[in-house]
Amino acid sequence: MSARDTADEAGAQKLAQACADAMWREDRASQSLGMTIQRIGRGEAVLAMTVRQDMTNGHGICHGGFIFMLADSTFAFACNTYSQRAVAQQCAVTFIKPVRTGESLTAHAVERSRTGRNAIYDVTVRDGQNSVVAEFRGHSRTIAGDLLEPNSDSSS
Amino acid sequence: MSARDTADEAGAQKLAQACADAMWREDRASQSLGMTIQRIGRGEAVLAMTVRQDMTNGHGICHGGFIFMLADSTFAFACNTYSQRAVAQQCAVTFIKPVRTGESLTAHAVERSRTGRNAIYDVTVRDGQNSVVAEFRGHSRTIAGDLLEPNSDSSS
Amino acid sequence: MSARDTADEAGAQKLAQACADAMWREDRASQSLGMTIQRIGRGEAVLAMTVRQDMTNGHGICHGGFIFMLADSTFAFACNTYSQRAVAQQCAVTFIKPVRTGESLTAHAVERSRTGRNAIYDVTVRDGQNSVVAEFRGHSRTIAGDLLEPNSDSSS
Amino acid sequence: MSARDTADEAGAQKLAQACADAMWREDRASQSLGMTIQRIGRGEAVLAMTVRQDMTNGHGICHGGFIFMLADSTFAFACNTYSQRAVAQQCAVTFIKPVRTGESLTAHAVERSRTGRNAIYDVTVRDGQNSVVAEFRGHSRTIAGDLLEPNSDSSS
Repeated sequence: MSARDTADEAGAQKLAQACADAMWREDRASQSLGMTIQRIGRGEAVLAMTVRQDMTNGHGICHGGFIFMLADSTFAFACNTYSQRAVAQQCAVTFIKPVRTGESLTAHAVERSRTGRNAIYDVTVRDGQNSVVAEFRGHSRTIAGDLLEPNSDSSS
Repeated sequence: MSARDTADEAGAQKLAQACADAMWREDRASQSLGMTIQRIGRGEAVLAMTVRQDMTNGHGICHGGFIFMLADSTFAFACNTYSQRAVAQQCAVTFIKPVRTGESLTAHAVERSRTGRNAIYDVTVRDGQNSVVAEFRGHSRTIAGDLLEPNSDSSS
Repeated sequence: MSARDTADEAGAQKLAQACADAMWREDRASQSLGMTIQRIGRGEAVLAMTVRQDMTNGHGICHGGFIFMLADSTFAFACNTYSQRAVAQQCAVTFIKPVRTGESLTAHAVERSRTGRNAIYDVTVRDGQNSVVAEFRGHSRTIAGDLLEPNSDSSS
Repeated sequence: MSARDTADEAGAQKLAQACADAMWREDRASQSLGMTIQRIGRGEAVLAMTVRQDMTNGHGICHGGFIFMLADSTFAFACNTYSQRAVAQQCAVTFIKPVRTGESLTAHAVERSRTGRNAIYDVTVRDGQNSVVAEFRGHSRTIAGDLLEPNSDSSS
């Protein structure tokens, strides 16, 4: 890797981190669910969340919606690492294994495709034993506005 | 409609309501998000939820995960109206319109298909002006256990 | 219904039919698979196809791809009834029942949502006994070009 | 890698190839579309197809259904590499780039998840310039029957 590539990569990482910091300050939803950011990179994010008692559903297991929520937040952080605001258009989730209260979940989002304003991210959610509990695929689309300009328009 | 059909329908409605009551008692997730059940029928459910301040994301609008959550809970109530427990396998959501804090959302789930242990439900989420904000399609699969028997197994 | 509404509806129907005629002339794929258009309306289409011997897969039943193809063509005709060209962005299909050679399939596409350049269509595919064999949901997006202007640009 | 691992891997590869050979003999659909198998491995497949004139749609570009078909066949070969028959349950495809007549497409399917009777496969379709034209995710489910026993039941 050349010195220039290293510099570019460092810049991309710094930008991704600054975007995540800006997003996080506003993201009351992810904060209120007790999520934490584990890692941010260009087009990539890792978030964690512990399943609380108030996240259980009518079958006594973690409501799938909270597993989706963790995956969706991780997707949002991953697709917003280029400064230009991006929002979710369409998301699909497959639930693979039931999750119990107290479980520590980790979601890892990676970029699969990015063309023009559209991008696809794959998110894998694992439990504390590293078993996959859900697979998620999200489609994002950029909107007007820049995350790093405080007065930018945030409407889609 | 014959007297028998009317009786069958009344029985199906009563069963659906009893299932929803049993589900609701355990469903701390839907309760904690302030959801309310508006209507239950055989293979059908309507739930409402008001978007709270702590449901906003990094763009200052309602986190898509909470819209998904409302749709997913509505789907869960609709597919659990036959007494046999059913869980979500795969769900997809399309976000159509951003949603602001304070908005009153209503989700309506209808059964599209039911064959053997598998079923498909379509859920439309609307805001207070009756505009569609999201379209959701959920795939459910029945598991062992009966909602109306207190000691039934709830693992999938 | 007023005289004006009737006239508007007749105009929409005429436009939809003209679009379908223009599409069909170019649609070698649907033609070569033996599809026929059964009905066209504003945001709606019904197409039929008989499963041929050369449409069977490695399990000796109709290849799911041909069921998708029928649904996808029906979706394409339905979303191209407003004269402005529209293309598929994302499609999902659930296979519900295996289909044998010789079966007559009918697909019915209806518009679920249309907002700006984006729209969602639901397509149900049935066999000759009117049993549902597949459920399809397609997302379309309009592109530059008009179906009824012969020299319009067809690139997306 | 130990000698035993190497032997296991060689056995898995041999089994996968035998399954693909058995599937291919019956797969008139993939044959008639001119597909060729480029590579088979445990839970993995690469297939190729050239876009013919009779595969164009009403916009003069390759009908998305044929791109789906290539991805779906590749998915089918990948999920049928363990001898037990598996069929597609639900598939989603995102069309990323239009494809012209004469283009050589290659689809690569990899296994993302396999738990009990359910599995998820991701298929990426690329054109001759190695650009991604579509991303596909397929859900399979095993059915009764074994690919390598000639008289096994092929119904799902």
